[in-house]
Amino acid sequence: MTTVKLWSDAEAESEPRVKAVFDDIRATRRSDFINNFWRGLANQPAALERTWASLKEIMAADGALDPLTKELIYIAVSVANGCSYCIHSHTAAARGKGMTEAQHGELLAVIGMANETNALVTTLQIPVDPEFQV
Amino acid sequence: MTTVKLWSDAEAESEPRVKAVFDDIRATRRSDFINNFWRGLANQPAALERTWASLKEIMAADGALDPLTKELIYIAVSVANGCSYCIHSHTAAARGKGMTEAQHGELLAVIGMANETNALVTTLQIPVDPEFQV
Amino acid sequence: MTTVKLWSDAEAESEPRVKAVFDDIRATRRSDFINNFWRGLANQPAALERTWASLKEIMAADGALDPLTKELIYIAVSVANGCSYCIHSHTAAARGKGMTEAQHGELLAVIGMANETNALVTTLQIPVDPEFQV
Amino acid sequence: MTTVKLWSDAEAESEPRVKAVFDDIRATRRSDFINNFWRGLANQPAALERTWASLKEIMAADGALDPLTKELIYIAVSVANGCSYCIHSHTAAARGKGMTEAQHGELLAVIGMANETNALVTTLQIPVDPEFQV
Amino acid sequence: MTTVKLWSDAEAESEPRVKAVFDDIRATRRSDFINNFWRGLANQPAALERTWASLKEIMAADGALDPLTKELIYIAVSVANGCSYCIHSHTAAARGKGMTEAQHGELLAVIGMANETNALVTTLQIPVDPEFQV
Amino acid sequence: MTTVKLWSDAEAESEPRVKAVFDDIRATRRSDFINNFWRGLANQPAALERTWASLKEIMAADGALDPLTKELIYIAVSVANGCSYCIHSHTAAARGKGMTEAQHGELLAVIGMANETNALVTTLQIPVDPEFQV
Repeated sequence: MTTVKLWSDAEAESEPRVKAVFDDIRATRRSDFINNFWRGLANQPAALERTWASLKEIMAADGALDPLTKELIYIAVSVANGCSYCIHSHTAAARGKGMTEAQHGELLAVIGMANETNALVTTLQIPVDPEFQV
Repeated sequence: MTTVKLWSDAEAESEPRVKAVFDDIRATRRSDFINNFWRGLANQPAALERTWASLKEIMAADGALDPLTKELIYIAVSVANGCSYCIHSHTAAARGKGMTEAQHGELLAVIGMANETNALVTTLQIPVDPEFQV
Repeated sequence: MTTVKLWSDAEAESEPRVKAVFDDIRATRRSDFINNFWRGLANQPAALERTWASLKEIMAADGALDPLTKELIYIAVSVANGCSYCIHSHTAAARGKGMTEAQHGELLAVIGMANETNALVTTLQIPVDPEFQV
Repeated sequence: MTTVKLWSDAEAESEPRVKAVFDDIRATRRSDFINNFWRGLANQPAALERTWASLKEIMAADGALDPLTKELIYIAVSVANGCSYCIHSHTAAARGKGMTEAQHGELLAVIGMANETNALVTTLQIPVDPEFQV
Repeated sequence: MTTVKLWSDAEAESEPRVKAVFDDIRATRRSDFINNFWRGLANQPAALERTWASLKEIMAADGALDPLTKELIYIAVSVANGCSYCIHSHTAAARGKGMTEAQHGELLAVIGMANETNALVTTLQIPVDPEFQV
Repeated sequence: MTTVKLWSDAEAESEPRVKAVFDDIRATRRSDFINNFWRGLANQPAALERTWASLKEIMAADGALDPLTKELIYIAVSVANGCSYCIHSHTAAARGKGMTEAQHGELLAVIGMANETNALVTTLQIPVDPEFQV
């Protein structure tokens, strides 16, 4: 149950700004599949255009971090925010970019450990060591 | 200002369980530096031993994910939890493991983007696409 | 699946404190509809009374902020906390108080932007400018 | 203590992409003041450009929501995320856009109430009423 | 650095609603000390009255949970929300109500463990077992 | 819908490390029931072993905090993190350890109050009183 309508392909065809983004998602990903996030965001063409443009730029293949690493970071953030949809979509994306079960297992362990030690540090209110200064 | 005492090296010397962990941290990291987190956790020797043992196992060099990738994931979680100490300590660790400014910049962009799209998805209450099923 | 029973109208009739709150909710909202939140909170009459009294006072029509603005703020908090029920109930309430699709779209954009820039600020650990001092 | 350098005006002058954004911030806000967020983000010109472009578009004066309402929403999100810098900068911005003490007081009350009822709903795991359906 | 003024005792004397709450805090706690939270909330007399009334009722000595247990729960929530002030004030309160170092150590361990397993569950998106049904 | 497979008893029998943990969970809890969390974690035997060992040590009966108090703390953290599964499993565990409805009601009230006052403190950016110093 969403708070907005999910746009069908037929509806997207009738709105040029939405159609243009959907077309670019399909071309960029070389897949006909448009996931529900974009179908919901289509209600707001400006947000759809801005979000897709940013995502395309940030998650693109050629960068200082490889695409799989970016997906792992995305999953870690999504877990911390409790965003179920995001966890599913980026876990699927990570698998599509070659994440092995062993890598998923280590990601799981690091996420668990980070959340645990974050909580320990916060409970104890540990002051930043001057050695960490830039 | 902490909620517990931070243990000095002299105090650690007087408590064998704490001394053993501090010695192992120094040996493992090949550095004399013990950061404040461990000095605060020393008040609880069982927690100190368990946490160090887990961290050593999880963040160790030989795994399916390389050490730098693990640090980037750690930073992403720490940002989502707002743990200032953790952000500083793991950013320093990431730099120590070779993180470049370009990589830090991409990490920043992915963290920002993930938090934004998490919020968009949650506002719209987007349902998980069946295509993401394992 | 709840962790407590949801009270039916018949059950509420049998407990005067619950009945009194349900009656006041109906009178205040000029609607017979009692949503599930109150039916769950009915297990704890003191919490039910205190929460309804506070909500009625805070969300009332006559104030320095108009009722719709308060609903938008409520949605923004609920998204940050990942409270699906709260997002649905306050999005419905906002629509009932006149929220247009254009306003919903801008709310979405501001929520997304705020979560993104919060994360950027936290990653970079930006110090507060003295100019922001009260 | 930041995790990156904060750029001075002199440094910004030496990097055309940063200078262009700083110039546009000053022109748009009709103020010479550049707050620390932008000085930290300047380390990543692409992120600086993208973030400023989005913020300018989203927070602009002419929209379906008035500028002060957007600032109140921004504060609410920043509180939920515990971003101290963001709370200070957007509270200052809200005051600059005319927020009265009475409005600040109501914002405070709504933020408190929303966080409380979010927690009550989550503890009880209340199911979404079908009446809230779009 | 606060976003509002902290009220001095002299200022509180001049506003009857604030004075009444400050007097009741002192009488209830049998201490002359008024901590900063109330001095900040004093800017909004209605919020001050409502918050103190609720806190007094909820944290009172005679209940189904003992006062120390309530403080431990308060600390756990405050850590999850990253509220440094709240962690300090409720850790001090817990000590005032008899919390031993051993109890603080176990609280620390449970908070760390809960945050870790919460993250593991969320990463794996574990479905609720029907056996947990009320 | 999980992001990993949930292990059946038959599958657990075929992997000695998983079988050993499942056997110990059953012996420790004196129950044949293995909840889904462990069935999902079984995909990563090292994480399964480490997590069960820590949980068994931390949540054990003989400590400075009684088992029910630990469950209440666990629930409070799980609510703050929005972990539905964790709220259900630990509410069931708390009931199994004797939590009364009156205690559940007070837990609810404290969780709500803590989240509200955390938000108030953060909105106002209240500085820590020196009196709270250890």
